[in-house]
Amino acid sequence: MSKLYLITGPAGVGKSTVSKELAESKEKSALIEGDDIYNQVVGGYVYPWEEGNHLDTFQKICNSTIETYLEDGYDVIFNYIIEPEDLEIYKKEFKKYDIKFVVLLVDEETLLLRDKERPTDCQMHERCIELLNEFKEYNFSENNIIDTSNLKVEEIVNIINNEKRFLI
Amino acid sequence: MSKLYLITGPAGVGKSTVSKELAESKEKSALIEGDDIYNQVVGGYVYPWEEGNHLDTFQKICNSTIETYLEDGYDVIFNYIIEPEDLEIYKKEFKKYDIKFVVLLVDEETLLLRDKERPTDCQMHERCIELLNEFKEYNFSENNIIDTSNLKVEEIVNIINNEKRFLI
Repeated sequence: MSKLYLITGPAGVGKSTVSKELAESKEKSALIEGDDIYNQVVGGYVYPWEEGNHLDTFQKICNSTIETYLEDGYDVIFNYIIEPEDLEIYKKEFKKYDIKFVVLLVDEETLLLRDKERPTDCQMHERCIELLNEFKEYNFSENNIIDTSNLKVEEIVNIINNEKRFLI
Repeated sequence: MSKLYLITGPAGVGKSTVSKELAESKEKSALIEGDDIYNQVVGGYVYPWEEGNHLDTFQKICNSTIETYLEDGYDVIFNYIIEPEDLEIYKKEFKKYDIKFVVLLVDEETLLLRDKERPTDCQMHERCIELLNEFKEYNFSENNIIDTSNLKVEEIVNIINNEKRFLI
């Protein structure tokens, strides 16, 4: 049966890289980058953290896209910022399926190093530390967290694929 | 009421550029790049023109995404290769809405010049002429065609926005 992988964590931690390699490790998979869907809106675009954003429309599109792939037998890797209340939406919406929820964290020093390796216009500098701290405050279960500070991408993918603790 | 714009034409004609500028000309719009949705599949990816492709899953996702945006009051710009039989699907699926169907064509010489301006790994060289000829053979109505050879992007967008002949 197809599985849903929800991959989250602060900006710069390596969500996209891990998600892509996780998707590549599967026989039949779809990779959904939440940012790409959010950015389909052009005229009337509002940032997700601002009033008047289109997170409602976004959520409907993500849900129907994920559902279609799962029904058609694809493992789905969904990469986006997921807060505790969002997690409840996905648990309810996809309760028929196995869901692995993975929070990628990292120490501050490593996060700043990874930030420097990104394209210049994507670098967040000190701001990424604030986002890291916000994520820590969500108090997600230790079962769902990977400290990626000393791990290679392939090691992270192996942990996600092999450890049952991520199931919610 | 929100409108659906179906933008098609051979590779290299400038569909993405026109679609983006068309989306930017609207107060509230969503731009759906068909290729980006098709390429969400990672494990088990098959090219659209090969046997075992996932065009069925792709079509379901495109339809539900377009529908959600239209219902939520967005003009939708959908950019993909659309063949005559695909057009019937969209006409039926979105009959509640105004649909403008736009086929961008170009002369061979200009197409080869535009192809040379693309990033090296996207260039198609002589192959783009074959695709242009395939498109001409679809015999779409003259009402839906724009010869873009001597037009700037903003002129093309104005034609799409102002001429009623594209409505299907």
